[in-house]
Amino acid sequence: MDEIRCFSSNRNILCLFDVDGTLTSPREKIDPQLDAFFQSLRKKVKIGVVGGSDYSKIAEQLGDGDEVIHKYDYVFAENGTVQYKDGKLLSKQAIQNQLGEELLQDLINFCLRYMGLIKLPKKRGTFIEFRNGMLNISPIGRSCTPEERLEFSEIDKREKIREKFVQALQQEFAGKGLRFTRGGLISFDVFPEGWDKRLCLQVLEAEGLDAIYFFGNETDLGGNDYEIFEDPRTIGFTVYSPKDTARLCRELFFNGPPNES
Amino acid sequence: MDEIRCFSSNRNILCLFDVDGTLTSPREKIDPQLDAFFQSLRKKVKIGVVGGSDYSKIAEQLGDGDEVIHKYDYVFAENGTVQYKDGKLLSKQAIQNQLGEELLQDLINFCLRYMGLIKLPKKRGTFIEFRNGMLNISPIGRSCTPEERLEFSEIDKREKIREKFVQALQQEFAGKGLRFTRGGLISFDVFPEGWDKRLCLQVLEAEGLDAIYFFGNETDLGGNDYEIFEDPRTIGFTVYSPKDTARLCRELFFNGPPNES
Ligand SMILES: [Mg+2]
Ligand SMILES: [Mg+2]
Ligand SMILES: [Mg+2]
Ligand SMILES: [Mg+2]
Repeated sequence: MDEIRCFSSNRNILCLFDVDGTLTSPREKIDPQLDAFFQSLRKKVKIGVVGGSDYSKIAEQLGDGDEVIHKYDYVFAENGTVQYKDGKLLSKQAIQNQLGEELLQDLINFCLRYMGLIKLPKKRGTFIEFRNGMLNISPIGRSCTPEERLEFSEIDKREKIREKFVQALQQEFAGKGLRFTRGGLISFDVFPEGWDKRLCLQVLEAEGLDAIYFFGNETDLGGNDYEIFEDPRTIGFTVYSPKDTARLCRELFFNGPPNES
Repeated sequence: MDEIRCFSSNRNILCLFDVDGTLTSPREKIDPQLDAFFQSLRKKVKIGVVGGSDYSKIAEQLGDGDEVIHKYDYVFAENGTVQYKDGKLLSKQAIQNQLGEELLQDLINFCLRYMGLIKLPKKRGTFIEFRNGMLNISPIGRSCTPEERLEFSEIDKREKIREKFVQALQQEFAGKGLRFTRGGLISFDVFPEGWDKRLCLQVLEAEGLDAIYFFGNETDLGGNDYEIFEDPRTIGFTVYSPKDTARLCRELFFNGPPNES
């Protein structure tokens, strides 16, 4: 690996990473070796993250306290509805302003009633988590333990609980400007049309970058990296693990031809 | 106020405080002057807290990081299902072990369906919060803002949303060993019979104390301090604010006759 001790004079390429499954194991902290690698990558290119989780969860996974906003040039939480650049909050959006209280409540109440009819071996709490730019819906409840999470995930694979739930929502709320994305093992997200990870590209477009390389592990249709991966404004890469992400970046920016323009 | 610089040699009286409305404004941090007063009280008597919130919330309200377990001789979170003494975790209980998954899920599903039919000006997220020893149920969702919280509270006063909800639960789950307690402005708690704040008295009984003075602001029937206040093992005081709690303690332990035995 090259040893470069300061930022390259022209960091005009951005490597933008999904978080869960791309930089870290789902919901876990980043491996310290990988963390060191991505910081060394930052000397060559700009680096940023765009995650579906809220800022505090992303911050916890990628550093101590608020380190994350100093370790990454851009931090986009909740798909980019909460935006940090160079360590500072740029702006926040709110789903209720976009959808209106009426539609939002119809959606919430439909989900509550639907989940009230789902029977599982175990159910916990926090079935609907309200975030700035999305609702996260979990039939088992987000407060389950890691073991309960895996148990649900196995049942969900067999019985397609989340898939059927999303189908019911798509039917009930057809034409209402809602989108649905699987994320992680136990939940899916509901958000206004266009408020997927592409939302962060609105900010990035104004930044005069030469290229945006996007790395994500759920780039297939229905995955939460699909839209940004497919977007013409990004050069998309599918990764299979955090190690795989690092390997790919090493190939692209350390062993390949020089990337500085 | 007396100036006593070290612990009294015989701190065999415990002053046990509810948190929200008794030591702090609901969900807020303790006033620094009151904090200093209660620490001075600790030189005369043992002090403890018993709150309905989870440990992290109580810790945040009463200190920085884990200070709370070093500032109070006993810390009982979630009504005493999570117990700290002298800075160390004693034990934790779990509601699913007490109720069983079947009844727990019937309860959760009933609440989900019931809330899916409630219409409010605003609804947010986290309608059911799963804690060690209870479920916390909030028709507006716990993630509402302070303004939304007050708005709901006004509607709830007029329309008795929580009261009717609890009545429906009491009817549906009669004889199943469940108890219900209002707490705060936007939610109520469901827990196994006996798992109210009296649970912490089980631990305290073994401690050989001369007396337990309990201070709470919701000591009326249906309030979350009612059972422990009424319990013969405590000497109960109703308080109206954190300042009122301090005033009462000052009268009892600083200006009155000496309390050391
Ligand atoms: Mg991912
Ligand atoms: Mg693309
Ligand atoms: Mg209280
Ligand atoms: Mg009593």
